[in-house]
Amino acid sequence: MAKRFPAAYYVERILAHDRLGLSRAITLVESTLPSDQELAREIIQQLLPFSGNSVRIGITGVPGVGKSTFIEAFGTFVTREQQKKLAVLAIDPTSQRTGGSILGDKTRMETLAGNKQAYIRPSPAGKSLGGVARSTRESIILCEAAGFEVIFVETVGVGQSETAVHEMVDFFLLLMLAGAGDELQGIKKGIMEMADAVVITKADGQNLQKARAARAEYQSALHLFPRTASGWSPKVAISSALENTGITEVWQTIEAYLETVQNGSYFEQKRQHQNLHWLHESIRQTLLDRFFAKPEVKETLPELEKKVLQGEVSAFAAAEELLKFSN
Amino acid sequence: MAKRFPAAYYVERILAHDRLGLSRAITLVESTLPSDQELAREIIQQLLPFSGNSVRIGITGVPGVGKSTFIEAFGTFVTREQQKKLAVLAIDPTSQRTGGSILGDKTRMETLAGNKQAYIRPSPAGKSLGGVARSTRESIILCEAAGFEVIFVETVGVGQSETAVHEMVDFFLLLMLAGAGDELQGIKKGIMEMADAVVITKADGQNLQKARAARAEYQSALHLFPRTASGWSPKVAISSALENTGITEVWQTIEAYLETVQNGSYFEQKRQHQNLHWLHESIRQTLLDRFFAKPEVKETLPELEKKVLQGEVSAFAAAEELLKFSN
Repeated sequence: MAKRFPAAYYVERILAHDRLGLSRAITLVESTLPSDQELAREIIQQLLPFSGNSVRIGITGVPGVGKSTFIEAFGTFVTREQQKKLAVLAIDPTSQRTGGSILGDKTRMETLAGNKQAYIRPSPAGKSLGGVARSTRESIILCEAAGFEVIFVETVGVGQSETAVHEMVDFFLLLMLAGAGDELQGIKKGIMEMADAVVITKADGQNLQKARAARAEYQSALHLFPRTASGWSPKVAISSALENTGITEVWQTIEAYLETVQNGSYFEQKRQHQNLHWLHESIRQTLLDRFFAKPEVKETLPELEKKVLQGEVSAFAAAEELLKFSN
Repeated sequence: MAKRFPAAYYVERILAHDRLGLSRAITLVESTLPSDQELAREIIQQLLPFSGNSVRIGITGVPGVGKSTFIEAFGTFVTREQQKKLAVLAIDPTSQRTGGSILGDKTRMETLAGNKQAYIRPSPAGKSLGGVARSTRESIILCEAAGFEVIFVETVGVGQSETAVHEMVDFFLLLMLAGAGDELQGIKKGIMEMADAVVITKADGQNLQKARAARAEYQSALHLFPRTASGWSPKVAISSALENTGITEVWQTIEAYLETVQNGSYFEQKRQHQNLHWLHESIRQTLLDRFFAKPEVKETLPELEKKVLQGEVSAFAAAEELLKFSN
């Protein structure tokens, strides 16, 4: 096990905007050791008053949409043109399967990785969605206390993680391809309705015409969606990371959104509700994890699931059967 | 307490397609008494092999969309033209608040109420969503065993219940108004993407032109959505319950859907996955209900929620604090 310091060390280092201290604290947050978890809670509790001063942006899209390239271009704009310190976090519970991490390969974001205004933290490997979501959310607090003003939370766009990200960001950006049909199958239903903005990527060369048509289509589709309490109606932009177009527009869209929602109590209320969500989500997750970790449940579940699938036992009777082990 | 019979009584009566027996069994399903619940489980277990032979159709839409009128017209078509036995169930957890039930007022569906081919069962009053969802789902099994070939599950269209209904039906029908803008706010995000068909209601008189335009808009919007594994792409129809138009078309759409999904394993697979969903959902709900019913949790929760809302404690630290009471 790596060396551990007292909580005060991490708190001081982070408040001094030291990256090594930040990385070490995130490692604690990601650790499954109870002693590390306790230390992490102490650090977060002390840093909580210094958190919150960032724009949290969720970025999602199916593999192949050009997410890394977009994040490179957009991140470079945020740090260079806007002169803001940027942290890029990732949620990728599938890294369980691949054993790697979507951001593990630093060459994937070469420019940003070498940018002193940017901090890139790969998704923790080998964790469930609940675990990854938790550490990412706590990492946001640490990054904010470390002085980062813009935070990207990236997802792979194929599973449940989008909902988790939506519950931890201020603005949710969905990347799409023009003329997408079958390639859309990977996006979970309901994700599109969560988007505060849709960006059609790869809008260059022979694709430009198609991207413009897609923008018009999505724009008219999105206005059919139920509006949120924010009063914001989702925007559609086209962008080419290759030709570096549309990047400024995306940033302006986010600024316009912030102006809309900060001009009232919505922004703060949304964050407060997200906090409550995580309180309840965290309880739910822990109760379920503990229940399904019980040896009797582990032993009985597969058999009962099979019976339910085959229609031999009703779902509720099977649940009743399993719940006998809950005490 | 009303008189109870042995399980065999209910099973026999239901298999003989007797409505009184069915109604009495549903009352047991809705009861919160442990002895009733046990009896209900026994009945369902015995009837399970006789269930499944129906088309389960979810119908939702915001208040004011003309849901009752549509169900009257559509239900009459199903029973008269298609000569099928129809059961209409409802999910309305809000009846908790009103003390009544959306289907309580039988005058709301006068024609169907007097139709011998139709069986209308109001939403059980005074229950949580979890409770209502559970009894509705078990009632579907009972209705199928009682020989009903088409089952409507109606929701009020304003809350979480749509997701629950989506998880218990084969086909999900969303009713919408033409030219809807602000009135759409009541629909929860993501509902539209769940729809297998959208029906624009009140397509008559001066509204007809608007309804036609809305149909075109929704049709082009829906094709932008990610497709499901079913291979089905959602359809949009217009209907006037007043002039009895569009009703046949809706039924044909459902038949076309069934043809698509039954021409393979999707239909059966979806039902099996729904069964698994309810097993897990039921466990989740029970664990949470038990946890939040603990006196220490009840006492500590409001205070901790306040601290989380005000940013004094992190969501995860608060969860940790509460979870101490879980053992």
